[in-house]
Amino acid sequence: MMRNFAKTITLSTREKYQLIDLTATVEEIVSESQIVNGLCLVHASHATAAIICNEHETGLIHDVLKKVKEVFPPGAGYLHDRIDDNASSHIASALIGASRTFPIEGGSLVRGTWQNIFLLELDGPRSRRTVNVHIIGE
Amino acid sequence: MMRNFAKTITLSTREKYQLIDLTATVEEIVSESQIVNGLCLVHASHATAAIICNEHETGLIHDVLKKVKEVFPPGAGYLHDRIDDNASSHIASALIGASRTFPIEGGSLVRGTWQNIFLLELDGPRSRRTVNVHIIGE
Amino acid sequence: MMRNFAKTITLSTREKYQLIDLTATVEEIVSESQIVNGLCLVHASHATAAIICNEHETGLIHDVLKKVKEVFPPGAGYLHDRIDDNASSHIASALIGASRTFPIEGGSLVRGTWQNIFLLELDGPRSRRTVNVHIIGE
Repeated sequence: MMRNFAKTITLSTREKYQLIDLTATVEEIVSESQIVNGLCLVHASHATAAIICNEHETGLIHDVLKKVKEVFPPGAGYLHDRIDDNASSHIASALIGASRTFPIEGGSLVRGTWQNIFLLELDGPRSRRTVNVHIIGE
Repeated sequence: MMRNFAKTITLSTREKYQLIDLTATVEEIVSESQIVNGLCLVHASHATAAIICNEHETGLIHDVLKKVKEVFPPGAGYLHDRIDDNASSHIASALIGASRTFPIEGGSLVRGTWQNIFLLELDGPRSRRTVNVHIIGE
Repeated sequence: MMRNFAKTITLSTREKYQLIDLTATVEEIVSESQIVNGLCLVHASHATAAIICNEHETGLIHDVLKKVKEVFPPGAGYLHDRIDDNASSHIASALIGASRTFPIEGGSLVRGTWQNIFLLELDGPRSRRTVNVHIIGE
């Protein structure tokens, strides 16, 4: 029977820019849901964070964060910085996107070998970030 | 009972580049659907527009549009410009994405305090833009 | 009755950077599913590819690939290149996204006239790329 299953992941971040691997936690939620076929939305409820999917390799994590800072450099004369000094974090979140969706088939998240799921912190450190994992399936 | 609920938002745009806040309209559609738990897809059926999610602050709106023009500058020798003079708008739409998906929990769209939903016009003004709000849930 | 329908598209790629139009194949799968209303997720299970949606015009295809190489240039001193020499492909996949979602209404994929669906190969040629088309609807 088609149904919803939702859980919220709560975490803290330590750096201004950081990638936090959520794959194991998301897969535990998929397993706990006992949903065999469906869709799994991983959604960060934040305007200065994003969700991305890629390989968990130390060098690459450094490269992704460097590229984000390069394309969206902090303090580049943004009007929003007069209020909050984090315009570049907002812009990156808006354009990269705060969620990613995955199929669930045979009881497992469908993802490639090198597709890990990360929260991309763009304006840390933050004591409380929330990521909603929402599954619809049967 | 799990079901679909879909509505199309129709709007016009006034500028070449513009952010139009759809949050209130999307939330009215969620409310009208009476779906309490599910997924809500906000999808622009256009190749020169995008859907993004971020804070509604005047300065930031200016900053986002400026960054889009900077990363995807019009008239930079694109081949497509020989046909239509809007290649940069197409490329921005392709890479930013024409949709965003949100969870619905407890009858409400799950979004952060600063996560408003915008149509990003990249090739206006247009007399008719359509945004499909498609909800699955129960 | 709400249900799932999923198919995997398998294909090979010929170039390092290539756009492969999947629209006809995705629409055949939607048709075969006999699902009239729902959501359709198009997901590439790869960390060096992406799914994008835009116009199928030869000049524009060239422009999109050129822009991707420009924003994510290969060999720009990435740490991950010490392992695999494809860091720029990973970063592009992470930030552009490996999936796109579309509504299904009246038995058809909801997409604009110029919204074709493409696999964006970022690290080809590859003998086997898989794209999961996962539909939930009724």
